[in-house]
Formats: sequence, C-alpha cells, structure tokens
Amino acid sequence: MTVLEKLYSGTKLKQLNITQLKSLCEEIREKIITVAYKNGGHLSSNLGSVELTVAIHYVFDIPTDKLMFDVGHQSYAHKILTGRLAEFDGIRTSGGISGFPDPMESESDAFLVGHAGTSISAGLGYCRSRDHLKQDYFVIDVVGDASFFNGENLEAITSSTIKPNKFLIVLNDNGMSINKNNNGLYKLVSKVTIRKSYKRFNSFLKKTVGKTFIGRFLKSIKRSIKRSLSINSFADNLGIKYVGKFDGHDLKTLIKILTDVKNFGEPTLLHIQTVKGKGHEEAENDSSRFHGVSKELAVSKHYFSSGISDVLKRQIEKTPEIIAITAGMKDGVGLSEFASAYPDNFIDVGIQEEHAVTLAGGMAISGTKPIVFMYSTFLQRGYDQLVHDVCMQNLPVIFMIDRAGLVGADGKTHQGVFDLSYLSHLPNLTVLAPKNLVELEAMLGFAIAKNSPVAIRYPNGKINDIFEKCKDFSFEKFEILKGDLSCENAVLAVGPRALEVSNKAIELAGKNAMLINARTIKPLDSELLDLIKDKNVITVEENAKIGGFGSSVLGYYADKGYLTRVNVVGVCDEFVHVGTIDEQLVKNGITPENISKLLK
Amino acid sequence: MTVLEKLYSGTKLKQLNITQLKSLCEEIREKIITVAYKNGGHLSSNLGSVELTVAIHYVFDIPTDKLMFDVGHQSYAHKILTGRLAEFDGIRTSGGISGFPDPMESESDAFLVGHAGTSISAGLGYCRSRDHLKQDYFVIDVVGDASFFNGENLEAITSSTIKPNKFLIVLNDNGMSINKNNNGLYKLVSKVTIRKSYKRFNSFLKKTVGKTFIGRFLKSIKRSIKRSLSINSFADNLGIKYVGKFDGHDLKTLIKILTDVKNFGEPTLLHIQTVKGKGHEEAENDSSRFHGVSKELAVSKHYFSSGISDVLKRQIEKTPEIIAITAGMKDGVGLSEFASAYPDNFIDVGIQEEHAVTLAGGMAISGTKPIVFMYSTFLQRGYDQLVHDVCMQNLPVIFMIDRAGLVGADGKTHQGVFDLSYLSHLPNLTVLAPKNLVELEAMLGFAIAKNSPVAIRYPNGKINDIFEKCKDFSFEKFEILKGDLSCENAVLAVGPRALEVSNKAIELAGKNAMLINARTIKPLDSELLDLIKDKNVITVEENAKIGGFGSSVLGYYADKGYLTRVNVVGVCDEFVHVGTIDEQLVKNGITPENISKLLK
Repeated sequence: MTVLEKLYSGTKLKQLNITQLKSLCEEIREKIITVAYKNGGHLSSNLGSVELTVAIHYVFDIPTDKLMFDVGHQSYAHKILTGRLAEFDGIRTSGGISGFPDPMESESDAFLVGHAGTSISAGLGYCRSRDHLKQDYFVIDVVGDASFFNGENLEAITSSTIKPNKFLIVLNDNGMSINKNNNGLYKLVSKVTIRKSYKRFNSFLKKTVGKTFIGRFLKSIKRSIKRSLSINSFADNLGIKYVGKFDGHDLKTLIKILTDVKNFGEPTLLHIQTVKGKGHEEAENDSSRFHGVSKELAVSKHYFSSGISDVLKRQIEKTPEIIAITAGMKDGVGLSEFASAYPDNFIDVGIQEEHAVTLAGGMAISGTKPIVFMYSTFLQRGYDQLVHDVCMQNLPVIFMIDRAGLVGADGKTHQGVFDLSYLSHLPNLTVLAPKNLVELEAMLGFAIAKNSPVAIRYPNGKINDIFEKCKDFSFEKFEILKGDLSCENAVLAVGPRALEVSNKAIELAGKNAMLINARTIKPLDSELLDLIKDKNVITVEENAKIGGFGSSVLGYYADKGYLTRVNVVGVCDEFVHVGTIDEQLVKNGITPENISKLLK
Repeated sequence: MTVLEKLYSGTKLKQLNITQLKSLCEEIREKIITVAYKNGGHLSSNLGSVELTVAIHYVFDIPTDKLMFDVGHQSYAHKILTGRLAEFDGIRTSGGISGFPDPMESESDAFLVGHAGTSISAGLGYCRSRDHLKQDYFVIDVVGDASFFNGENLEAITSSTIKPNKFLIVLNDNGMSINKNNNGLYKLVSKVTIRKSYKRFNSFLKKTVGKTFIGRFLKSIKRSIKRSLSINSFADNLGIKYVGKFDGHDLKTLIKILTDVKNFGEPTLLHIQTVKGKGHEEAENDSSRFHGVSKELAVSKHYFSSGISDVLKRQIEKTPEIIAITAGMKDGVGLSEFASAYPDNFIDVGIQEEHAVTLAGGMAISGTKPIVFMYSTFLQRGYDQLVHDVCMQNLPVIFMIDRAGLVGADGKTHQGVFDLSYLSHLPNLTVLAPKNLVELEAMLGFAIAKNSPVAIRYPNGKINDIFEKCKDFSFEKFEILKGDLSCENAVLAVGPRALEVSNKAIELAGKNAMLINARTIKPLDSELLDLIKDKNVITVEENAKIGGFGSSVLGYYADKGYLTRVNVVGVCDEFVHVGTIDEQLVKNGITPENISKLLK
C-alpha cells in the first residue's frame, strides 16, 4: 500500500513518520508528473513546492487554518492532500478540477488565485476578520519570489506596521521568477544565504560571552551584522519577523521551523529556497521551458505568439527605436528569440504590469517606441495606467494583447474575455484584431507609424488560417471576406476563431450572407456599417457581450438613429470555467449551429 | 518691482541671489494662497513644495531636464515659474490651466499626473529613451511620501537594480500622507532624522582616524551604523544612492545638495522633510482640512459624502461586522466621523487601492462585512482585483463609489465617468445608483443583506434633492417618478443630476413622458424595459456612452430582439477637461435643451 493510499484509507497525515512523509513526497511528485504528461499544466512550480506543502499540512490544520498560494500554480500537492486525488486525473479538463486553488472547489482552498500578488492582502483580510470575530486560526500565505515583488503584495506587506499574529508568509524562493529579472528587492532578499555563518557566529556568542562589557559590545556588533543582512531590518520595519533562509526540500527542517513559527505565533516571514522542477531532471535544468506544458510535456504551440519574434525583427530593421516590454512573460508572448537578438531593445520588468504600462508611457513621450506584450487577463492590472498615463496623454504606446479570447484549460482566472470591454470606452485608443499573422504585422506597422495609442488583440492556441492573406490593412476599414451588399445577412466577426465559426454557420445555413472581418473595433468602419444598416446584422466575438464589439455596433446605430437588427454573439455574463476552447465556445453559443439559426 | 515681476521681465532665475530667491518663495506662496482663496484647489501640498521647486529650477534646466510631480498637486509653484503666472489666476476654471501638470498645457510639464504612484515608472521611461537615443538630460521625480508607497512606485523602484544615471527621486516627506497611516516602509524611511548624529560621527572619523588598523575597524563600525539606518541599505539594494534627510524649506542647503546630486550624476534618492501648508498658519496646523479647499478656503461640501458617516453609524448598529475601508481618502469620502466613533471598524490603508480591494475580498470570505469607500477614478486601480478577487469568487464586498460622474474643477485625471463601463461587464456584480441619501441608505441595507458583490455609485458636489423620498428600494426595479405607460416617451436617468436635467427637459419640451429613476444598472429592470419597448426611450447618465447604462439597455433590447429606439445621452468619447460641472454637462450634451429635442 502506498502512503497516498494509506492517507485515502483513513490514516491521518499527522500520524506518518518522517520516512513515510518522504515517500509521500515522492509519490506526489510522480503523480504530478504523470498527470502533467496527460493533461498539460504547470509542472516546474508544482514540483518545487511538494515538501513545503506536506510540511504545512503536517504542522497546521487545514482547512481550519487557512492556506493560500501566490500564485496558485504551486497547489497541485495541496489538491492531492485535500481529498482530490481521484479528481486530480481530470485536472484542467472540462468538468474537472481547476489548475488553480478555488474555494468553490474545496473548502481547503482559502482564496481563488490565478493572478500574482494578491495573497498578502487576502491573508491580511482573513486575519482581520478572525480577530474582529474573535476566532482562532493560523493564516498561511505561500508566495513565490516572482509574485512577492508584484506591486499589490508590496502594498500589502508595507501597508500597516501592525501586523496580525498567527500570520505566516512563506517566501518560496526558487530564484527564478518565471523569467529571471533584476528586481532590486529580490537582490536584497537573495543576499541571505542559507543560515550558516550568522548562525555559527550567533551560537559562538551565546556560548562564550556573558553580560560583561565586552559581551554587550560584541552583542551590539552582532546586532549590526544582523541588521546588515538587510532583509532582517527590512522585515522588522514592516512589523514582521524574518526567519530564513532554509532549504525548502529538507522536510525535517521545514517541519521543525514551521512548528516553531506556529508556537511563536507572531507575524513571520519565512524564507525558503526551493528548486523549480525538483525531482524531474529536465524540468530542473530548464524550468522556464517546463513552467507550463501541454500534453506529453510538449511546449505549448500558439499560432500568434510563435510568430511574434519574427514579426518584430522585421519591424525593428525599419524602426530601431522599438523597445519591447513584457511583465514576466517573455516566453509566453513569444519574445525569447527577439530578446536574444536585440537585448538593448527588450525589457522584462517581472510581474509588474502597472509599472510596465507607465514605463511605456514615459518612453513614448520621450521618443522611443515602446511595445507592451501582455496577456489580456494580466493587462487588467494596468487598466488605470492605460486610462491615466497612456490614453489621457494620447501617447503612442502599442499594446500587443496576447491570449485575448477564450483560453481553454487555464480556467476562469486566465480568460481573455474582458479586454474589448475595458478598452472600448477609452478615448484616443485604437483597438484592432487581426485574423492572421500577416494582418497582425500590417497592423503593427500601422501602429508604429501612428502617433497615438493602439491595442492589437489576438488569441492563443492553434489557428486555422482559412482566409486569403490581406493585401493591405486600412484604418477604420473592415474586410469583406465573402458575399456582397446584395446579401440579406451580414456577419461581422472579430478574430480568426469567430471568423471560422461564422464561416461554417453561413455554409451550414446555406443562406446568402456577407462575412466581414471586423478587424477595427475602435474606431468602427462607419461607412460599411451604414451600408449594411438594413440587413440582418450578426456580430460574433470572443469577448463579453456586455461592452464588447457588438455593444459598440449597437451604440453606433443608436447614435445614428438607425433601427438596425443586431444579433450579438459573444461570451455570456458568467465567468468561463475550465474546459477546451471548443467546449467554452459551445457553452457561450459561439457555434455554427447557433449562429446559423440567426441567419435569415 | 517684485522678484516675480523681474522674472517675467526677462531676468533669469539663475541670476537671482539667495535673498531674492527667498523673496521669490514668499511671493509665490502669497500668490498660491490668493488664488486658492479665489478658485479653490490643493493648498497645503503646494505651500509645502515652494522652496524645493525654486531650488530645482535654480539648479536644473527645465524643460531640457524633465521634472515630474507625484502627485501633481505640488505643482503650483512650478506653474508660476514656467510662464503661467497670468494663467494662474484662472487655474481650475473653464478654459483655464489645470490644477495638475499636463504636457499638453506646457512643455515644462513632463508627464500628466493626477493619480498617485506613476512618477518613478514614468521617470524610468524617460531615462530609458534618453539613454537609448543617446541624449543627455536629468530626470527628476518629486514624490510625496503618501504616493511613494503606492504599489506602482514600489514596483518601479524595486524593479531593476540597474538604475539609470542622471535620475533623481526627491522624496518630499511631509510625514502626513493625505491622512496619516501606518505604512511600514514609511516607518523605515522616517527613522532617519535630519542628518546630525551620523554626520557628526562621520566628520569625527574623517578627522581623527587614518588608515590604521583601529581606523579600519572604526570605519567598519561606521558602515554598520550607516547600514543600520536601514533606508541606506534599502536604497543601496535598489541600485540608488540614498541622501537625506534635509530640511526642505532651507533653500540654501537644498541648492547645495541638488548641485551635488547634479554633479554626482548617479541615481539618487534625496529625502527632504517639508511642512504641509508651510507659510499659512491654519493650513500648517490642520493640513488635512486644507488639503483640498473650495473657494474662500471653505471645506468642500458634498451632498452624499457628508451624509456617509451618519448612514454608516445607523447600519453598524444592526450589523457590527461592518468594516469600512478607504485608501487615503478618509475625509474625502466622509468617513472621519465614523472612524472616530468606530475605530475598530475602520481601516485606512493609505494610497493603496489594489491592496484595499483584495483585503476586502479576504475579509468578505472570512466573515466580516467590508465596505470599500473609493472615488470612481481611483477604483480604476483596483479593476483587476474587482474582477479576479471579488467578482470571480462572488464575494459580498460592497463598493461605495464616490465622485462618480463629472467632478468639475479637478480636471481630466479625476473624472468619474468610466465606472459604469468598467463595472457593467463583470459577472456576479450588482451596480446601483441612488438619487438621494435616503435611497443610498436603502441600497446599502440591501447590499449588506446580499451575499454577493454590490457597487453603489454617487456623485460629488451639491445635489438638489427634488424628488420624493423613495419609500422602499426594490432590487431590479427602476422607480417611475413621473408619467405612466400611456406616455409616448420614456426617459431613464441615472443619478440625481441626470434626473434633474431630464426632468427639466420634459418640462421644457412640454411633452408627455415618463421620468424613470434608473437606479439599478445591473441587473436592469427587465420587466419595465419590456413594458416601454415600443416607446421613444432616452437614457441619460454621467458616464461614458460607450459601455455605460445606455449601452446596457441597447444590449438588453438587442438580446430580446426588440427594435426599440434608444437615444443614449452621456459623456462623449473624449476626456473631460477642467470646468464647472455645469459646463462639463453642457459640453457633453447632457442638458435640458438637448434632451428635450429627443422627445417626441
């Protein structure tokens, strides 16, 4: 019987001995690798946090004590330890459990988290309620080093010096971030080596020095040295006790320290060092490549992002002022190759989306050509900066918004279905959506030449590039792909998947319809919209119906006083759950069958 | 001839002697007080930064060197020194200059700024362009202590350890923030006292100690002491030299230090201490009260916020789990009185909107009743947290969104005209807008009882409460104030000013029309919308037309397949410039005259 089987047959984790706990770690690791091979997912970070998770569950009482992960792609071991072993095989698949923690999935998941930087705020919220309601439990945040330096965590940790008791932040430091960056606070934190010299000096003092004058003097030097390990002094000033740095794979030490922290009871920042991909040789050696994988541990293939570096290399030959900016997503957005070729024209600020957007604003106003590459869901973090720092000053910042639309298995925290809604109402902003890479490049060229902000949004995954290459991209002009003004129906679709679905709908219905590539969402193609105003208009988009492209078309016709019949097809007013993109399209009625019924 | 007159007759600032510079400071101070008395504005912070601004202009070359203020309400002296003396009398009035820096207004204003926390990112952007383009100038950020600890600045300052040369951050520390808070990093920073003991020790070492062994030993102690002044070590780790702390009203010292910094050339964090309201006795003693003032230095009167504390006191008697949260805006949102009466039920996190929203999420999931009070324009900072931490988990956080709609003199950075657009597409969220305080209280009671997130938005300024008190508030129900279903027109207005304008429009036109209080923006009152579907419908709101209430009504009818004629009246697709609220309403066609023309 494996240790996992024992646990699932009634044995409590706390009853296991250290040998069994170590075996448990190996079993969990094996399980994670097997399932990641089958379903894809975040491999490296989950392998790195196995011992830590086992130790936390051994020492604390989950779910009475509250455990949060920041971000949630360290939570697989936690899921396996909290009754979800059977469901684990179906992780990230339709109807299955999520790849991230979710309180709706299990009471052991204290907070939903897919975006970085939220856990210290959420943890402080738990503490505040607990103390207000005179309850008694521990609150534990496990924070990766990349997330730790996100602005929201920095706000939360610096916020009030009066930190609550029974509050533990574990800084799970794998020294990697998602891609390496030069974070300054990280430099401070990483200076601390695994407690050796300081510890030895400390015990020397304790042994040899009494309360003599020389003793007090040496103690004051000790304090100075301790302070000079900056992070101590940094943490002291934040009202939290710094303890570190320990080997995060040494289960025995972890259990001892966590027990100490639990008994200590005061607010503590525990710094541990782990190895990303621990226990999987390839993942250890190339944790970036194995950060998130597809089935069979393959690198995820994305039509648009895999073409980005080439596109950018061609553009920079013409415009050497281009500087590409990303926020911890160099590989994801497809910039690795470009960054190697043009290191002086590339900035990765780490997971700091707010800083990235305003930095780009500062660059645009002073003469370079910043292009910000960000996932649709993460650009939400920069919404105010978009409004206040970029659009309000009408600065020529270009936003390349990747993963715009339905994203599939990453689940509800990662869907890119709000960008058209949070962008369309911003004055001065141009919003574009290409149907293929050729059009993307034409749009980027247009954006580089334009002296105002431009957002270009495109989806993840494979794309069937079924339509002819556009010969040229014209501003404020949709592209008519099929049919003409004699048709009774006009289907306006945004992006390649909506176009493909719409095309199939027209074929399925056998109706006479224009198929229009609605590539310029803002401003709209008013000329064409006027020409089709008496038709049966259908808009199709991978974005929330509320405030998206269809909504803009409705607004346009209402302003003109036209009573045009517009059928808006898009994402319904619900968060999109885990599943394949196809399943998510079906769930939202973005299907040939549904659209064909709307054709007259 | 005053020194200011001299400057405006061709004398250069750099030609003045120290006596003249001091006189100049007094003249500027007087001017600021006079104009604030006439136009209202940010008094305290502008009085605090006069010497600093004069010293910067004396030492550096503006606009060749770039100067940014964070936030911009320290920029009055800068405006007076950069050719805008004549315009200064008309500051914050229609057609006049803005109360904040704006590059569209003057080339001496390097970056637009009304929201806190943006300057270090923007400054780094300037530096990056400068170095990329091989240009040569200094970049200077003047950052208030409250802004300094906003998450975006924390991201920017911690971001890369490779800080650019000729980059100066002046931490203008008045020890106040807008309201005092317990920021932990501030505690670290504020430990440093104006250079005395350390300086004395330093010169003692230099004088008495050579390169002997004991000398080296003492030097190492010196380094330890220096390090123990934490901020040094903190800054060192960020790749920036810390210099401080100096008296920010000592013009001579400021000039000397700034000259040193200029010659030094390396990235520097200069810490100065100033007095908010300096030179105006009342403002010095009560800088919070004088932070922002109306004409004649009166406290700004706002119908809604002035009633908030009373409303909340009544609610907390029934629901002791209520905890009110604000982000540095205790006075502005009307919570001062409540905070004094119920200190355990009040949190001010400082200017950290992201943290505030997720903190509320953590509290809501763990059993207290968080109510977040924030200006519409500042809640933009918490957009992703609203999506990801609150709505996605369907947590019962209440958002009291103040200054929603047109705000008048604070200009384009402070308008609250996007909230309906950034809120309406969020699943699980209820969005309400009361017409008066009675309705606000009924809505708040409803929200407290509801187990999902609710946003209640209300405007600033005076409100003419012209309609009968609502007897009860019903969820998903608009309120018919005038007319009935026999009318040909239906005017749906959001909030008290839109209602008042609409009411006048109906009277002006003498037409037969229903006047409907559209108090529940999400979900809409579908029953009533169905009943009026064949009428001439007009929606009126103080929000962007794109993605706002009117847009939702259009979406509703389109979904139902009704070809209802909807006229959307709201804020046009342009940023709203400084002016009175009435002028801003006129500019956007939200007037009785315009609406009356739409009535049939």
